[in-house]
Amino acid sequence: MRVLGVDPGLTRLGLGVVESGRPTRPELIAVGVVRTPSDESVDVRLGRIAESFDSWIDEHRPDVVAVERVFARSDVSTIIGTAQASGLTMGLAARRGIPVAMHTPSEVKAAVTGSGRADKKQVTHMVTRILRLDAPPKPADAADALALAITHLWRGATAGASTPGKNKDVLSRRAAGRQGSGLTAAQEQWARALRAADS
Amino acid sequence: MRVLGVDPGLTRLGLGVVESGRPTRPELIAVGVVRTPSDESVDVRLGRIAESFDSWIDEHRPDVVAVERVFARSDVSTIIGTAQASGLTMGLAARRGIPVAMHTPSEVKAAVTGSGRADKKQVTHMVTRILRLDAPPKPADAADALALAITHLWRGATAGASTPGKNKDVLSRRAAGRQGSGLTAAQEQWARALRAADS
Repeated sequence: MRVLGVDPGLTRLGLGVVESGRPTRPELIAVGVVRTPSDESVDVRLGRIAESFDSWIDEHRPDVVAVERVFARSDVSTIIGTAQASGLTMGLAARRGIPVAMHTPSEVKAAVTGSGRADKKQVTHMVTRILRLDAPPKPADAADALALAITHLWRGATAGASTPGKNKDVLSRRAAGRQGSGLTAAQEQWARALRAADS
Repeated sequence: MRVLGVDPGLTRLGLGVVESGRPTRPELIAVGVVRTPSDESVDVRLGRIAESFDSWIDEHRPDVVAVERVFARSDVSTIIGTAQASGLTMGLAARRGIPVAMHTPSEVKAAVTGSGRADKKQVTHMVTRILRLDAPPKPADAADALALAITHLWRGATAGASTPGKNKDVLSRRAAGRQGSGLTAAQEQWARALRAADS
């Protein structure tokens, strides 16, 4: 299974692709950030994000897209742009028949570090470890996108969300299914062992 | 000039197309609402909106898309879905090279009724009058989309926003230009006369 994680934002949108034959050994496929200049109009910035996102889909052909869930109580100064970018990527993926899962920031932190209150540094550290990288992923902004993809691999592995296809039939089929949640016992055990070895 | 007005929402997304040879006599071309079922997942609903919106663009070929501006202080229960739907339509339009303008609800009310605090009923009444319809536009939800399109015709007529085209060059050109605002003196005069005749 190949997962494209999306950390949505108008100024910086993080993208990270992770693949797993065995869920406990995710592999880094690609990581990057789409930046759009804040002096451009919002529609043009969203148009650029749409083009970049579709290029990533074309190039990496993910089975699932995992997007960070946006809350109405998030940072007021950026919430509209973040929600707009998330809606755009979700709509583009769904229309291409790619299942989309949402995970909250605390679900991601909990899955990757064992604590829903972990800070950015801890998340980056664990992403580096889980993907067996020599150095923290660059750009740093995209570590969250990789963490989302890893979280989905672990939480979603039992959910059978990967039914790629096209158009309305897929939209209807997708509508019938829902994302599951929770790690399998084996994943939870492995994740705990990794955290213990790390601390 | 042909304007597609978009009243964004996840449950109901209003669409209204208005055309004008002379800015003071806008003509109704089409009006409708895209509804998505609240028991479907958000990504599937956004995928359906993307398909419907692109069909409207293909069928009506607007010169400009006018979208209601979403604020962080809007209704908390719907703000995320509204922002997601707005971001999706804006990104899809921009990527096709169609200029996108944003107008606030009070700008729309002021342009159409003369008061930024007008209620929904007044807006529907004036839209019916301005477009010389025999009855209020149906579905009622879409009157706001028509009001947005009319507002853009009046406010945007001096702004030269209609430069249709394709892809990145257009995105760059669009980035260089900005929407103007304010009615021309003649439009303001006509709008005042219409309101006076109406009251």
